[in-house]
This record gives sequence, C-alpha cells and structure tokens, in this order.
Amino acid sequence: MCEETIEQAVVLLSGGLDSATVLAIARERGIACHALSFDYGQRHAAELAAARRIAAASEVTSHHIVSVALDQFGGSALTDSRLQIPNQAAGGVIPVTYVPARNTVFLSLALAQAEALGIRDIFIGVNAVDYSGYPDCRPEFIAAFERLANVATKAGVEGRQFRIHAPLIQMAKADIIRRGAELGVDYALTVSCYQADESGAACKVCEACRLRARGFQDAGVADPTRYA
Amino acid sequence: MCEETIEQAVVLLSGGLDSATVLAIARERGIACHALSFDYGQRHAAELAAARRIAAASEVTSHHIVSVALDQFGGSALTDSRLQIPNQAAGGVIPVTYVPARNTVFLSLALAQAEALGIRDIFIGVNAVDYSGYPDCRPEFIAAFERLANVATKAGVEGRQFRIHAPLIQMAKADIIRRGAELGVDYALTVSCYQADESGAACKVCEACRLRARGFQDAGVADPTRYA
Repeated sequence: MCEETIEQAVVLLSGGLDSATVLAIARERGIACHALSFDYGQRHAAELAAARRIAAASEVTSHHIVSVALDQFGGSALTDSRLQIPNQAAGGVIPVTYVPARNTVFLSLALAQAEALGIRDIFIGVNAVDYSGYPDCRPEFIAAFERLANVATKAGVEGRQFRIHAPLIQMAKADIIRRGAELGVDYALTVSCYQADESGAACKVCEACRLRARGFQDAGVADPTRYA
Repeated sequence: MCEETIEQAVVLLSGGLDSATVLAIARERGIACHALSFDYGQRHAAELAAARRIAAASEVTSHHIVSVALDQFGGSALTDSRLQIPNQAAGGVIPVTYVPARNTVFLSLALAQAEALGIRDIFIGVNAVDYSGYPDCRPEFIAAFERLANVATKAGVEGRQFRIHAPLIQMAKADIIRRGAELGVDYALTVSCYQADESGAACKVCEACRLRARGFQDAGVADPTRYA
C-alpha cells in the first residue's frame, strides 16, 4: 500500500496507550507533529503529565495543552468525582465514563489549530474494537467529522480538504501494542487508568485498566504498567 | 406553520444583534434557555459584557461563559491584534476576520452542555444573507453539524436526536431587526463591532458595523448603536 506523503499534522495526544502509538506511527512516516492535549477537568490529571512525557520523547514540533472545562457541564464519571468509576464493562450499554461530546470538542479544536497553521491532516487514536463503546470512537463519527470539517472551514471550502486519520480504529488492542512496540513506544510513559493517582499509578480494576492489561497479555509484550 | 413544543434549549449568545434576536425568539416560544457564551480571546471583549446584559434582561435559566483560547492558534484578525480589522467587505473572498473553525468549536461545546443536561435543541444565530461570507454560517454547515451530533453522542445513538436551530439563516439583516424589535429586544444592549472599545462603543467602519447600520436603516428602526 502506497502512503501519501504528509509533511505536517495535528496529533491528538491524551497520554494514553492508543494516542502514544498514533504519534509513533505518524513520526515514523516522517511527519512533523503538532501534539494537542486537553485539560478538560478530567479526574485523572496524571494523563496530562504522561502526554508531556510522550511529546518530549517523540520530538514533536509543538505541544499545546488547551484548557476547556467540560467538567462544568457534568454528565460523566470522568469529570465528576461524585460519580464512581465502574470496576467492569457496562455490558452492551455506553458506560458512565462517557464524556458528552468529548471527541467532537477535541477534534473541533484540532481543526481550529490545523486550519490556523495551514495543516490539513489530523490524527486521532480512537479505536472501535477493544473499547468502551463510546459513540465518538466509531468510524461513522470520524467520517461525519471529516465531512463537517470540509464545509465548516475556509480551507475546506477553498478545496484544501481536511483528512481525519484514525489508524487504530479497526485494530485489536494487542495489535496496537505490538505495532507500538515495533516502533519503540515506551508504554511505561503512558497512563490509561480512569482513576490513576497523581504519580500515574493505575487502579487495575477500571475498564481502561482491564482493556490495557489484556492487550499486553494477548500481544505477548511485557506490561510496564505501575499499579497503586 | 405549527411549531413543535420545546421545553429547554442551549442558545449560543455572542452579545451581538443576531444571537440576541435568536434568544428572544426562543424565549417568546416559552423555551427555558441556557445561554452559552465564549471567552475565546476575541479582541472585542466588550461583546461578553453585552452577552451578560442580554442574558440578564432575557431571564435565561442559566448563562455559562466558557473559556477556550482560540487566540493561541492565531490565524484571524479577530484574535490577533497584530492583524488589522478591514474597513470594508472583502469582495467575494472570506475576510481575515474569519476565525478558524470557530462555530464548529462553539457548537461542539453547546452539544456537550446539551447532552449533559438532557437537552436536544440548540439555537444559533448564524445568517447566510447579510453576512461576512464565513463558511460556518451557511445552511450546509448547520446540516453537517446536526448529522455529526447524532452519530457523535450517546443521546443521538440512543435515538434522542439533536436539532440545531438557525432561525435567522435565510433572513436579511433588516428582517432580523424588525422581528427583534417586535419581540422587544433592546438592541442598545448588543455589540456587533469587531473592534468595539471597552465601553462597547463601535468603530462605525468595520464590516460588522456596516452590516448592522444598513440593517437598521433598511428596517426603518431607530439605531441605538453608540459609536466611539
């Protein structure tokens, strides 16, 4: 498969395993990466420290952390400490860790940065295989956002089409980890846990921890996760 | 025409003439309105003071001002004081006052609030007749965002469809002003100017001032705008 040359991209970087892998995939292609992270009122603020570590280790061109207080609206266990993070998968329903419109807000801000910088490629680490069932991690969401981007912007209307790249979207967690390991991603830098402590140590029981641990096991890759 | 009953809505409120009129239209329909404004690094911060005045006068249910620093990305004369606000229409091209992806970011945050509150109706005062040619003020943008909202969210996926209402989108500025005057909107509270001073006094020469002044003239409504 012949990949088109991309010079620059905006790469969403949460501090978790998936986005660290996406950043490594983009860097391996020689793309100058503008990493973009969000301080959105998440309880697991350790993931922002992780994002900083990963950005530094990946020699990104820039790293912005945008503050946007989604916690002021409530509606999610990830931003409201009065709600408990569940210890298991929700079993076919979207769990309380869903944050209303989170990836829509994040991609909108990535689009704002990309257009301002004259960049038309945006990378995001969503995954619709080993995931929590969030609607804004599915291929139809990515396709709908790409369509929106190209009618919403000056660049899109003038024919410089935006592309939203979600290279992990159809990959199993184990395959993501294997790919990242090949690329030299240091997963010890990443934090996936929904309730990691300040040091980044993980709880081992939330759904994000379970998906991550099973991924390392299935991949046959040593799991560097620190647990509290 | 029979209008469906809407109990609650999120209403984007910039502090300008159009969004004040939209809020009045929604309030006249008996809708409990959650007004949403943005401190996005705009040079004309007087519009936020105007938004507060309008929200108070309109007996809104809540008024949030969300901070999201779009000026950190640059790319617009509205957020970068090194760029000059032009004194005339750009003549067929999108002017430098365009802010990359602004309405996409604003509607995304409105969607986040709406979903968190269990609301499915969002009102926005975009207009594609007497406007500056911004791509994110056109009907195709609104339609694309509505489609996105319904694949991006838990509520949308579960069948509680979001609707983006843009009641002014096909109205001439004079008609907007006539409608607002009928509804008792106090346009003296509003600020449209792209470079209003701290007191809210307008420059009279930017495109926003020109569109506004011509609108009052064509409507035959007394223009309460204060000029610097």
